[in-house]
Amino acid sequence: MLVRRPEEVEDQAMTMPGAQGVTMKLMVGRDDGVPNFAMRLFTVQPGGQTPKHAHNYEHEVMIVEGQAQVFDATIDSERPANAGEVLYIPANQLHQFRNTSKAPLRFMCMVPTSYDCSAPESDTSTPEFAPTPGS
Amino acid sequence: MLVRRPEEVEDQAMTMPGAQGVTMKLMVGRDDGVPNFAMRLFTVQPGGQTPKHAHNYEHEVMIVEGQAQVFDATIDSERPANAGEVLYIPANQLHQFRNTSKAPLRFMCMVPTSYDCSAPESDTSTPEFAPTPGS
Repeated sequence: MLVRRPEEVEDQAMTMPGAQGVTMKLMVGRDDGVPNFAMRLFTVQPGGQTPKHAHNYEHEVMIVEGQAQVFDATIDSERPANAGEVLYIPANQLHQFRNTSKAPLRFMCMVPTSYDCSAPESDTSTPEFAPTPGS
Repeated sequence: MLVRRPEEVEDQAMTMPGAQGVTMKLMVGRDDGVPNFAMRLFTVQPGGQTPKHAHNYEHEVMIVEGQAQVFDATIDSERPANAGEVLYIPANQLHQFRNTSKAPLRFMCMVPTSYDCSAPESDTSTPEFAPTPGS
């Protein structure tokens, strides 16, 4: 068993274009020998946001702390998501997390460790196809 | 995008032998079309416990609320785990969550949606090989 506290993990700035005030801790990932999916803890500072983007693998998310405004491509609009809520964002679906509150937003974002880097772009609007960071 | 609040999900009693005071909410799973892994939110009441068991797929866990005493087969003993901590339990490794505190324990437990039901028992002590509930 591996037990890891967030305090033990380096907080890495998200440098992808469009990201503002976002850091990520890779809680467990490929280097730990996990076979199927990685867990990443994101922090978005007040006024910050992740890029509005899509990629060829899904996200499963739990809001850990704070409030998010999440772009939901199925309604072509933002919707709020609060601590405790769970989100499933299918592959190739545009999404974005913004923090319009005055407190940090934290969410755990799970991604598969195996994804197809060589997959062709889908026919949806996909400004970026970034590989899964460190997963 | 699918957004699901814990309040919207049925809390199912865990009836596996050895479980006491444990309920589970399947936050996202196979029926939602997720391709790789399911998210289940467990609550363990004070004095409750999950079975001490192992199975042929891994767990990735985040303690959401409260305190757990977790059996860790790598040290053949229990260790504490608190809110915010992340655990990786490899396939076929014995594990158990006990709540010896006076407040409910909640943890998110992720499992792969694809697992090999027909795999032979491993050579570790595996009292049970239960399929992934509802994933």
